[in-house]
Amino acid sequence: MQIIRPTLLLNETIVHRNLLKMAGKAAGCNLRFRPHFKTHQSIEIGKMFRKAGVSAITVSSLKMAAAFAADNWQDIIVAFPVNILEMEEINHLAQRVKLGLLVEAADTVEYLQIHLKHPVQIWIKVDCGYHRTGVSWREQDRIVELAGQMMKSEKMHFRGLLTHAGQSYQCRSRSEVVEVHKQTLQRMISVKKRMAEKGFLNVEVSVGDTPTCSVVEDFSGVQEIRPGNFIFYDLTQRQIGSCSSEDIAVALACPVAAVHPERNEVLIYGGAIHLSKEFLVLENGQKIYGEVCLLREDGWSAPLPETVLTSLSQEHGIIRTTPEQLKYFPPGRLIAVLPVHACLCANLMREYTTLQGRLIRTIHR
Amino acid sequence: MQIIRPTLLLNETIVHRNLLKMAGKAAGCNLRFRPHFKTHQSIEIGKMFRKAGVSAITVSSLKMAAAFAADNWQDIIVAFPVNILEMEEINHLAQRVKLGLLVEAADTVEYLQIHLKHPVQIWIKVDCGYHRTGVSWREQDRIVELAGQMMKSEKMHFRGLLTHAGQSYQCRSRSEVVEVHKQTLQRMISVKKRMAEKGFLNVEVSVGDTPTCSVVEDFSGVQEIRPGNFIFYDLTQRQIGSCSSEDIAVALACPVAAVHPERNEVLIYGGAIHLSKEFLVLENGQKIYGEVCLLREDGWSAPLPETVLTSLSQEHGIIRTTPEQLKYFPPGRLIAVLPVHACLCANLMREYTTLQGRLIRTIHR
Repeated sequence: MQIIRPTLLLNETIVHRNLLKMAGKAAGCNLRFRPHFKTHQSIEIGKMFRKAGVSAITVSSLKMAAAFAADNWQDIIVAFPVNILEMEEINHLAQRVKLGLLVEAADTVEYLQIHLKHPVQIWIKVDCGYHRTGVSWREQDRIVELAGQMMKSEKMHFRGLLTHAGQSYQCRSRSEVVEVHKQTLQRMISVKKRMAEKGFLNVEVSVGDTPTCSVVEDFSGVQEIRPGNFIFYDLTQRQIGSCSSEDIAVALACPVAAVHPERNEVLIYGGAIHLSKEFLVLENGQKIYGEVCLLREDGWSAPLPETVLTSLSQEHGIIRTTPEQLKYFPPGRLIAVLPVHACLCANLMREYTTLQGRLIRTIHR
Repeated sequence: MQIIRPTLLLNETIVHRNLLKMAGKAAGCNLRFRPHFKTHQSIEIGKMFRKAGVSAITVSSLKMAAAFAADNWQDIIVAFPVNILEMEEINHLAQRVKLGLLVEAADTVEYLQIHLKHPVQIWIKVDCGYHRTGVSWREQDRIVELAGQMMKSEKMHFRGLLTHAGQSYQCRSRSEVVEVHKQTLQRMISVKKRMAEKGFLNVEVSVGDTPTCSVVEDFSGVQEIRPGNFIFYDLTQRQIGSCSSEDIAVALACPVAAVHPERNEVLIYGGAIHLSKEFLVLENGQKIYGEVCLLREDGWSAPLPETVLTSLSQEHGIIRTTPEQLKYFPPGRLIAVLPVHACLCANLMREYTTLQGRLIRTIHR
């Protein structure tokens, strides 16, 4: 394998380990494991999940759902509030698979009542404090009403309550993640109780961002988890406490293009169109776009100390390092960048190269 | 045309106007207009440039150079320091077109001397204060030496000095842009003078980021400009002072998915994989990922006041607006988002839809 330009490397050993660990945790906690496929967006990586016993998945768009349905995935939640403009696509998919949809508004439920042609599974999106989408967990009467409204339709099968505790991404320690999770569970379960009082029994609870699923052991009262990023992990997850550097399964191989010893900087071919503009703020206030590893026969090294990507433009990346380490960066050498956000990086790159040199495409290629 | 998911709209009237204005300015100043095609990355939009008399272009990668060479562009600068790992691609292209390369290091020149099989045009990348790439304008002896080194090769034709005054992106007024430009010209011309003293005559000067090319009228001593973003413009350029909202030629049409009146927020289907995570910081300190317009028969409205995209995740966008304007956002309605960075948005979307509903692909589709 000869790499000459930015190339997303995938360490399959780490992918398998991350997968088995999470699948094992789900099994141990007696949870349905419904991984989010928006991270990898790949039919082939999907097949690894299938081999690990996964049969239910999460995706973030109907387009993605259609792509995985074509590979015979039969139980798919589209984890985005229903976009009524895609009604035709919804009906098309609902005919072929067990399709899970998210709702949070009475108007949307009404629209679905009128336009659905095939049965779907409905999840009410509950906001437990992230404030991106969903009905607030405090508005329990509204949630009960929404579920009641669905009863009028033969096509809508109310499955349960679904939340994404995205506030866990603000955590900077495992104990903070545990606290977010505890609060989320309390809130979900208080809604579930109210629903039970109103006659809604067998209401399932679906949770599961990568930070909580990586850190937490207790999922009492939960039926399903939906982590996605854990399959690759990244620097954001490491900063939160979800993983260590050794768990990160993807790295962007980048050619060194120029060196500027006078400012301890290295220019690499690798920029915003490869890594995305997602950044992290370190404890010392420094903004970073990636960490830097050396390539090895068996993958890549641990991140070099005091060596980070400090800025990105469209195709340029700037590494700042120490005078002693400049020797690692002769022009023409390939280095490996650990991404800040693996999902966005994978979405941009659209293909993976395994350490054995095999190409794995995403659904966009 | 029925839009049901995030779609990048292109107003061809504005594109033509932006193109003719910049081409006119270049002609008026007696400059070679060598537009940067990394912004649009489209063969068809490239043809609009050709109709406007453009015959020389800039690109940011050899891949992009090859794509445009295939459409018979014959004079192409790859505005990225030579990546020696792509030597084969360089030779392949140099055989077919007048290929311009950027160098900043003696090692690279030496490598090219040995490996070049066909003649190329060499530009020395000069750093006039942006500190991303290039030899500092202060290191004039090093620049002279580099040029001297090229004389030893029959394949290397030294053309001149090229800079990218990217520090203009930090400007927040037209007068600041003018100052950056003046300083850049002084520095480039002082290098050129030194070269003349050392016997290098006919050294060309190539400058031209979008801010300076949009704002400045005086290009004395310059032979060539290379703006790219001006063809679409965006909110970053508007903040710098390069354009007004009416000059922005692309907008992302996004379906409204849900409304949260309790916090004056609207959830749209449109996120980081459509707009990129590039943001702007407004004067009041607010971080924004886009501004919001209403769609109209003839395109889109002016941006709604006090209505901005405040956060983005993979496919979700959150608009914050005022109570009075919530009426514009019923679920299922399409709205238009002006991007913060048009180049990254276009690179992600990979196709444009004109207001007449015609699809224009990029080289990636």
